[in-house]
Amino acid sequence: MIKITLPDGSIRECEKGSTPMDVAKSISEGFARNVISAKFNDTVLEVTTPLLEDGSLVLYSWNDAAGKKAFWHSSSHVVAQAIEELYPGVKLTIGPAIDNGFYYDIDLGDTSISDKDFPAIEKKAIEIARGKHNFKMHPVSKAAALQKYKEQGNEYKVELIENLEDGTITFCDHDTFTDLCRGGHIPNTGIIKAIKILSVAGAYWRGDENKPQLTRIYGISFPKQKELTEYLELLEQAKQRDHRKLGKELELFTFSAKVGQGLPLWLPKGAALRERLEDFLKKAQKKAGYEMVITPHIGQKELYVTSGHYAKYGADSFQPIKTPKMDEEFLLKPMNCPHHCEVYNFKPHSYKDLPKRFAEFGTVYRYEQSGELHGLTRVRGFTQDDAHIFCTPDQLDEEFKNVIDLSLYVLGSLGFDNFTAQVSVRDLTKPEKYIGSVENWEKAESAIINAATEKGLNFVIESGEAAFYGPKLDFMVKDALGRQWQLGTIQVDYNLPERFDLTYKGSDNELHRPVMIHRAPFGSMERFIALLLEHTGGNFPLWLIPEQAIILPVSEKHEKYAEKVLKSLEKHEIRALVDKRNETVGKKIREAEMNKLPFMLIVGENEEAEETISVRRHGGEDLGSITISDFNELVTTEINSTLKSF
Amino acid sequence: MIKITLPDGSIRECEKGSTPMDVAKSISEGFARNVISAKFNDTVLEVTTPLLEDGSLVLYSWNDAAGKKAFWHSSSHVVAQAIEELYPGVKLTIGPAIDNGFYYDIDLGDTSISDKDFPAIEKKAIEIARGKHNFKMHPVSKAAALQKYKEQGNEYKVELIENLEDGTITFCDHDTFTDLCRGGHIPNTGIIKAIKILSVAGAYWRGDENKPQLTRIYGISFPKQKELTEYLELLEQAKQRDHRKLGKELELFTFSAKVGQGLPLWLPKGAALRERLEDFLKKAQKKAGYEMVITPHIGQKELYVTSGHYAKYGADSFQPIKTPKMDEEFLLKPMNCPHHCEVYNFKPHSYKDLPKRFAEFGTVYRYEQSGELHGLTRVRGFTQDDAHIFCTPDQLDEEFKNVIDLSLYVLGSLGFDNFTAQVSVRDLTKPEKYIGSVENWEKAESAIINAATEKGLNFVIESGEAAFYGPKLDFMVKDALGRQWQLGTIQVDYNLPERFDLTYKGSDNELHRPVMIHRAPFGSMERFIALLLEHTGGNFPLWLIPEQAIILPVSEKHEKYAEKVLKSLEKHEIRALVDKRNETVGKKIREAEMNKLPFMLIVGENEEAEETISVRRHGGEDLGSITISDFNELVTTEINSTLKSF
Repeated sequence: MIKITLPDGSIRECEKGSTPMDVAKSISEGFARNVISAKFNDTVLEVTTPLLEDGSLVLYSWNDAAGKKAFWHSSSHVVAQAIEELYPGVKLTIGPAIDNGFYYDIDLGDTSISDKDFPAIEKKAIEIARGKHNFKMHPVSKAAALQKYKEQGNEYKVELIENLEDGTITFCDHDTFTDLCRGGHIPNTGIIKAIKILSVAGAYWRGDENKPQLTRIYGISFPKQKELTEYLELLEQAKQRDHRKLGKELELFTFSAKVGQGLPLWLPKGAALRERLEDFLKKAQKKAGYEMVITPHIGQKELYVTSGHYAKYGADSFQPIKTPKMDEEFLLKPMNCPHHCEVYNFKPHSYKDLPKRFAEFGTVYRYEQSGELHGLTRVRGFTQDDAHIFCTPDQLDEEFKNVIDLSLYVLGSLGFDNFTAQVSVRDLTKPEKYIGSVENWEKAESAIINAATEKGLNFVIESGEAAFYGPKLDFMVKDALGRQWQLGTIQVDYNLPERFDLTYKGSDNELHRPVMIHRAPFGSMERFIALLLEHTGGNFPLWLIPEQAIILPVSEKHEKYAEKVLKSLEKHEIRALVDKRNETVGKKIREAEMNKLPFMLIVGENEEAEETISVRRHGGEDLGSITISDFNELVTTEINSTLKSF
Repeated sequence: MIKITLPDGSIRECEKGSTPMDVAKSISEGFARNVISAKFNDTVLEVTTPLLEDGSLVLYSWNDAAGKKAFWHSSSHVVAQAIEELYPGVKLTIGPAIDNGFYYDIDLGDTSISDKDFPAIEKKAIEIARGKHNFKMHPVSKAAALQKYKEQGNEYKVELIENLEDGTITFCDHDTFTDLCRGGHIPNTGIIKAIKILSVAGAYWRGDENKPQLTRIYGISFPKQKELTEYLELLEQAKQRDHRKLGKELELFTFSAKVGQGLPLWLPKGAALRERLEDFLKKAQKKAGYEMVITPHIGQKELYVTSGHYAKYGADSFQPIKTPKMDEEFLLKPMNCPHHCEVYNFKPHSYKDLPKRFAEFGTVYRYEQSGELHGLTRVRGFTQDDAHIFCTPDQLDEEFKNVIDLSLYVLGSLGFDNFTAQVSVRDLTKPEKYIGSVENWEKAESAIINAATEKGLNFVIESGEAAFYGPKLDFMVKDALGRQWQLGTIQVDYNLPERFDLTYKGSDNELHRPVMIHRAPFGSMERFIALLLEHTGGNFPLWLIPEQAIILPVSEKHEKYAEKVLKSLEKHEIRALVDKRNETVGKKIREAEMNKLPFMLIVGENEEAEETISVRRHGGEDLGSITISDFNELVTTEINSTLKSF
């Protein structure tokens, strides 16, 4: 008999050789029906693998991330088989699961695959899946493995196997198909009910552009056809809400090949929107006792040697800027913290001055490979809504709570109600990974956990995820399509105060080290606005949207009145414009809808006579004919309902 | 007889061999008494030099810049003689006049000169001056000149002479002193009534740090003792108003050796002040139809190759930023214009969209030698209040006037009433120096001159001072100490629209090139704030100053009331703070005066009982006991009197 510990801590005694599926069935038949993968003592395995020793077992269904991974990894085998059957002689390389689905990199030789071939591949793959073939892992000697792929002339698999140790190599079989594989499959192909090939792309073997180019086939699969349909709908919606598409359509930002990839140019409407967001946070920060500072975008290399950033990131980032005299070297700043430490060091501090809270909308530059750049979410230059709080260890608790309050205020004002938090703490078994005293770490971790608890956050604690310099709390939000994004962060830091020799005079008249908190409720202006675009589909909250209303004169005759309405709205600080084009009101309304204008104000004979406007909401609701002063009240009320003061 | 043309165009016939002084006397004896230097056919010469041909003559007095130059240059000879007599064996090198006085670079050998030696040098120099020795120029052969200095062992003069052509070499004698000199002296030493040695500094021979280090002796001299006294007072006032000193005392900005020289860190009070200035301009710009954009602080090298900046400045500036892949190169942006051209190019434009006015508080980076850095006026990173207007040639006139209006509004709101303008136009004799059609140049120059005339500017036209790409107008202001500073600039540009292929579709449906206007009313935030500090001595306009009032409780008992007053002022958006230190009110007032607080609000028994505050103005005026609401009205009225809306 062996002892199997389940995640809830309960222990089951089973016969040696029992499989995870046996354990699942011993819990309940109904439960077992959904189990598709398992992890035993940190190793992912098939539910049919015999268990031979005591250990911890986790059982996964489709609803678990690990279950999906096994499902998609297994699906990649099925798709590979389909392709091999349809295109004999191709060479398979690797085919992992990814966040949404899977891919397989294949050397197609002289053939090629395009969109129009997808249906045939999907058809073949689903035929194979319906065969309900079991996935069967079996060990194979290095020699035999090499022989198989040398015979096939598959130099990729040969290369992979050559790097493996004899005795660790396994193949996975299903139906007529065999693949080199470490394992982690679902029980059989029959569980896969829907398969979709999503796209093809080029990919270098082992990601190295000096090696042969392969074809990467992206796909996804589901246990129910309905789920695939829903996923494809989501994908279509996401495409419509893609911030790159909306950003262009709404003229918020652009990129220029001449300026360079990953370096956004904010167009007037985008810059104004960003300024409104910044002003909104500035106002709240002022109330919360922050002080704005402004620091340069470069610093001497020495500054980042002191901070440790150069040692950690120097080689992979933008390289040093030399000067004509060649004895000076500067770096683009990848972070604002070293500069803020030097601001703190401007003069000696007493415990009475603390906390000092220095905030800056600081633009930083980090080098990303061009292939990794993506709209505003992955850029080479971005502006953090950064601040650094310098406080005594005793103030940490209170300060952390204040930062959570501010973060919740920011998320709430922008319509993100659906968020969770992750608290990252030390791995207690690896004390050598962390700097700073155990006492300080305990204080900081409990400060964070207490603060998160007291503020009623829905949070998980991740052990070993803390930075080497301190624990942290990250906010994760779900957007309108249910996708999860990491946004703001709050981090405790014992490292930089040490490296920059920051001090304050305590009430004991001795010098002490302050603690530092890094925080950014938005994360970065670029990423946040991208997310907000995708979350709202461009229908920004009324206080934030570039234009709140468009005035639509029904004919040229009413243009003068339209201008009068515009002037009046401007006095009320309502952002509006007039559509004077010689088009029908119907067409103007349709375009205003497309351009996400929240209010359309139609003015014609009656309106002009009665000094009113006919108000139509985005989406179609007719609010009838009202006065400008009533409209102003409507707008103000709506804004005040989302934008509370901090 | 020869014909001498005077600056007013009149022609005088004189005997060949007449001197400039003879010509001056022929005008009037009284006029001649003030003449100390002259320029004949573009060559500066002594008033005693015989004129041998027809030509143009300008006569200078002490009141002309050229007269001062001759005066100070001559004084450097006198001081050099004094030093040679006091420190025999020193080696003289060069001794030019500068903007304020003169210097002489000397190899002192084993001796040294410090502050305490200045009085002796001054005494000896003034003794020499009183001898009324004439300055006498005479030619000398290269051989003889070399022999003289080789005998003296003065390798510096030998080097200078070796680079001169035989037949062009002159010496200047006065008293027992002889110096290698091109000329440009006053008639005799007796005119010099007051001499002051100001400072000593190290200086490399020929400015090359690989060459020997010399001692640079700075001095100044005047034709009246009273003028020296006044100058020294001005110098002392300037020292008190030095923006570097005030910036530190008022905690506006700082520099950090770790971040790097010439890279200011804006402290909270300075950042807030700067933000108020930016908001002030933003508001006016919004009314004037500008749109804010935001662009990155770097761009691909290619961008500046396109703009031409790289060819012109690349070698002398911050060097390109390489990336780990080494096939990309970026540059810190030295100017915002290339980025704004790319913003313009975001989409096609029609003449109906123009003008487009893109504004940005754009931080740019330019490499300056460390020796040239000076507080906030000469830095390596600074923020321009930049904007670029893209308009049709026909709109240029109107746009230029609008920019002048905006600039005048800005200067007026900040208390600069004393300004002049310089219009820089082409040198018509050198058409090859300029790009763009003659027609466009004529249009642009007349647009600027018309605009300046119509706006009633006090301006001079400088021929040949235009940039190669277009004419411009610069504003020069005089500060409270009468010193002249160059501030805002407005420039017309035909070059970048060409280089970036900017176009708009005209009413003729053809593509045309827009004209570009570069403009910056402040110039840069750094330079402007430095100037404002020196102009106001830190007593900023009330709307701008970091803290408008300080509340001084007469004892601890009244702190609570002081806090209540503070809250009430905050509601009125008056920036105030409470001085709670356990000090006498007298001391608190003295410190508040030093810290330039405009209003001191004293609160004690009576004030608390009557719910009032006793208001004392900076400088001492007692405004008596008034209510907070009255105080608010006082502040508002004062702000509105300087800060009109645009």
